[in-house]
Amino acid sequence: MIYLDNAATTKPCEAAVDAMIKSAECFANPSSLYGIGLDAEKRIEKSRQTVARAMGVDAKSVYFTSGGTESNNLIIRGAAEARNKLGKRLITTKIEHPSVLEPFKRLESDGYDVTYLSPDKDGRISIDELKSAADKETTLISVMHVNNETGVIQPIDEIRAAVKDIAPNALIHCDCVQSFGKLPVTPKKWSVDLISVSAHKIHGFKGSGAAYIADTRRIRPLIAGGGQQGGIRPGTENAGGITAFGAAVDNMRPDAERMKRLRLLMKDELARRLENIKFNGSDEYNSGSVLNVSILGLRAEILLHSLEMRGVYVSTGAACSTHKPEPSHVLTAMGIGAKGIDGAIRMSFSQNTTEEELIEAARIIAEEADKIRRIMR
Amino acid sequence: MIYLDNAATTKPCEAAVDAMIKSAECFANPSSLYGIGLDAEKRIEKSRQTVARAMGVDAKSVYFTSGGTESNNLIIRGAAEARNKLGKRLITTKIEHPSVLEPFKRLESDGYDVTYLSPDKDGRISIDELKSAADKETTLISVMHVNNETGVIQPIDEIRAAVKDIAPNALIHCDCVQSFGKLPVTPKKWSVDLISVSAHKIHGFKGSGAAYIADTRRIRPLIAGGGQQGGIRPGTENAGGITAFGAAVDNMRPDAERMKRLRLLMKDELARRLENIKFNGSDEYNSGSVLNVSILGLRAEILLHSLEMRGVYVSTGAACSTHKPEPSHVLTAMGIGAKGIDGAIRMSFSQNTTEEELIEAARIIAEEADKIRRIMR
Repeated sequence: MIYLDNAATTKPCEAAVDAMIKSAECFANPSSLYGIGLDAEKRIEKSRQTVARAMGVDAKSVYFTSGGTESNNLIIRGAAEARNKLGKRLITTKIEHPSVLEPFKRLESDGYDVTYLSPDKDGRISIDELKSAADKETTLISVMHVNNETGVIQPIDEIRAAVKDIAPNALIHCDCVQSFGKLPVTPKKWSVDLISVSAHKIHGFKGSGAAYIADTRRIRPLIAGGGQQGGIRPGTENAGGITAFGAAVDNMRPDAERMKRLRLLMKDELARRLENIKFNGSDEYNSGSVLNVSILGLRAEILLHSLEMRGVYVSTGAACSTHKPEPSHVLTAMGIGAKGIDGAIRMSFSQNTTEEELIEAARIIAEEADKIRRIMR
Repeated sequence: MIYLDNAATTKPCEAAVDAMIKSAECFANPSSLYGIGLDAEKRIEKSRQTVARAMGVDAKSVYFTSGGTESNNLIIRGAAEARNKLGKRLITTKIEHPSVLEPFKRLESDGYDVTYLSPDKDGRISIDELKSAADKETTLISVMHVNNETGVIQPIDEIRAAVKDIAPNALIHCDCVQSFGKLPVTPKKWSVDLISVSAHKIHGFKGSGAAYIADTRRIRPLIAGGGQQGGIRPGTENAGGITAFGAAVDNMRPDAERMKRLRLLMKDELARRLENIKFNGSDEYNSGSVLNVSILGLRAEILLHSLEMRGVYVSTGAACSTHKPEPSHVLTAMGIGAKGIDGAIRMSFSQNTTEEELIEAARIIAEEADKIRRIMR
């Protein structure tokens, strides 16, 4: 099995599995007053420190959630609703994940005015366009760090300076679900107020994520209940998922250079073996963790299933929307035509992906693509 | 160790742990198109059927969430907000869990009118009081099945008939977090539209729960994102937590008679050994899974720590609020005075609790209570 769908999800690492199993043995409620409850709480707080340290922030600004989707909803609706007296103008991009786009659509239906920035043909948004959209009424700007379908890095580090005077009331949110563990996630350096991350993209378990919230007075909680996590995200903590998340973060070995080499290797291998293909998304601004290629003249879904038979796992787009028959909103926004989208497959790598796997996968992809092209001709 | 705090949380059963470990091996994203993704999806759907069967409802009405707190928030805010054109009057009780009370308080601040029904001295709400509060503008009535601090069963089966003509637009929600696995949870028989349950109270893992929603057109989702779970609760499914939840439900052996016997045994043992104690909550209407007793003349927290030293785990109230120094809102609403609340401990049982454990625990509780009383005198 060569698993090249790490942007969809990753295999939990041994340390994460061990932490999960331990949570079943040391199962006390972290809010309980007795010692075994306090121990459970300590393990959660240790994970909070681990996640915080990986982002260079204070542990008290990190809140555990049920995953990237909840983090994005909490932050986007929470920030917009908490500060709607300052304005109802919001800015995001056309290439965000659905868990960002959908909360914004909901805010639109609640009377907010949302601008969706377009990417260029390389998949990158423009700071100039952002500046034109921003104004004094703008309270939230949400731009992802790394796109999940193309790996393209957005100019997060330029946003604050660009909007500082134009949109002084704007909080900046960055969905780092795809970049965490691959590139440095540095909200303080970026002057970004809000960050979303997910455990299952970095070899933790599904059902766990975190939100960095620099100032909780600027967020209305999504969920109300017992006083856990300062009331920002109450509910009995998912002790297993959280401690496994911490263990996975401890195991992260971000190596952006290696990732970029892997991606370029795969690109070269495919380019060498296959004619009439087109790579989607910037090479220059790329996390290296995703390679999106249009193999023109075939339908990607057919290739996906042929590859599966040979033990190679790739995707035709984001997993969260592959059950929907709609064409990729990311590639569409980049101006890639129907043929390019029909034949687009996404390969995504993890820190465990090897060069040998990629060379073998490229060989198999080329063989299967050739077969399908011959049949479809 | 004699663990008598099963209302706070339970130890995950072996089958749940096995399911969780399996989810780490078979880790594909359930939304992925290839076979191992579909297998993950099938395991989730099997769990959905298991949870649905345990409530006698259709699997398509069951939605997985991150736990009881999220289920309660989704249902309460979702139902109120989706139908606010029919009215903004809501009814609940003073003895609900904070994850019910807090969403209602938030709805109050959003302009809804909420009536909080009082329990009688035995901890049971009155159907007559409910009828007086209900009217044509009432869109939601939320009453818990079994109270988490006293075990008292509320008259859920009488609500629909009582309000049918008075409040024809009212949806009925029942928080069954404490009753699921102990008493039959039968929304169809009760004519109840909405149910919340939690995995970690029935030997599953923390971070997983479910909502039964009879008609999703009457609910506004809390979280927006990818199309998972029909958009009612999107986000990559917590495959491990969900399949472990299913395994735990398969392992449930609800035996209400046995639970009631356990509770009465514990009650007799304590009454026989300790003077000047008062039991809180109805015996007649009790799940048997909780015994709440005020040991007058001592502070429960001190007793809790003494018991902990002897390996007996009890609580002074709900775990979710034990970090807060406020007196129990449940006992307060039942009219129990400060002395009764100060000395109140909660013992809560699981299907694995044995008579031998209870007899031993009663002996230790009596010894420790005597010691503390002597010191405090």
